[in-house]
Amino acid sequence: MYSPTIEALIEQFAQFPGIGRKSAERIAFYILDMMSEGETEQLASVITLAKKSIAFCEVCQNLTDTSPCPICASSKRDSSVICVVEQPKDVSAIEKTGQYNGLYHVLHGAISPIDDISPEDIKIKELLLRLSSGEVSEVIMATNPTVNGTATAVYIQKLLKPMGIKVTRIAHGIPIGSDLEYADEMTLSKALEGRTEMN
Amino acid sequence: MYSPTIEALIEQFAQFPGIGRKSAERIAFYILDMMSEGETEQLASVITLAKKSIAFCEVCQNLTDTSPCPICASSKRDSSVICVVEQPKDVSAIEKTGQYNGLYHVLHGAISPIDDISPEDIKIKELLLRLSSGEVSEVIMATNPTVNGTATAVYIQKLLKPMGIKVTRIAHGIPIGSDLEYADEMTLSKALEGRTEMN
Repeated sequence: MYSPTIEALIEQFAQFPGIGRKSAERIAFYILDMMSEGETEQLASVITLAKKSIAFCEVCQNLTDTSPCPICASSKRDSSVICVVEQPKDVSAIEKTGQYNGLYHVLHGAISPIDDISPEDIKIKELLLRLSSGEVSEVIMATNPTVNGTATAVYIQKLLKPMGIKVTRIAHGIPIGSDLEYADEMTLSKALEGRTEMN
Repeated sequence: MYSPTIEALIEQFAQFPGIGRKSAERIAFYILDMMSEGETEQLASVITLAKKSIAFCEVCQNLTDTSPCPICASSKRDSSVICVVEQPKDVSAIEKTGQYNGLYHVLHGAISPIDDISPEDIKIKELLLRLSSGEVSEVIMATNPTVNGTATAVYIQKLLKPMGIKVTRIAHGIPIGSDLEYADEMTLSKALEGRTEMN
């Protein structure tokens, strides 16, 4: 339908998560029709530059352009707590709350037998290495409340048990501002199970 | 929240139509976390190359890497009919039907006083130039059935009237497979107005 050059451009964007064929076409035509050649060159160079300069933090495995990353390097953070998450974007979600002052560990995925992702494929080894120093007293499992995320949390918890480190799981329940009526049974069960005494 | 390099990458994607902040973050992390350096370089070069090699067809103003474009250059197309559309993607939408064998004219927008887009800002001049040859007997207005698209269709129709060229408008009505119940009143009115005799 389109010339091979346009088709190639569309396909580049269609590979991204959450971008369907229609959205990819819209982006491609925006580039060809609306952006100047200078803006396009900037887009290309920002992509190349970011890929070249961003790497995994040697400590927490988060994406960063300095290693260790600003969070791991900060003396203001509580280094006795590590919050384990699946993805770099989860770190920023927790940082936005302003409620957490410990360190992080990014697994870059979750164990998933169906997708052939085993414990060796995610950054569990690197977590164990960090814990061997004995400085950490609590590990918060903040993987997603999905089958894979929960399985990963349980797997890591079992590994850490003999090390005498406290392992906690973030609470699951009814989201603030939402309606009980629309909560699924699993969430509602978890909310009941995790109830706390009111003061 | 993110390092300046990651932030710059996110902002590049957030500028695209239909891509919000969350989607832009997801794309940025996909590039940084999932793509190889080679794949990223290919993405950047496809963008740069496409922008450099794609230009407007000198005849129909569609985006193309050869001018005139394959449709304008084809001897199999009926050059007595021109279908006027707003955007390049509208050409491909009509081509997908396989029902149209004439030529196209891409306006690259619609007249919109609110957005300060006047008739001089879209490719109307170029359309008039094509019609001056006298070869064209019908112009089909396939601009969108929006306020701006309709205003543009009416504006062009008035320009062409003195030239004795037949100007038609694509039909508006209930989409195939949809439910009458969910049609808005404007569409339903247009469907009634445009009713045809059944054979």
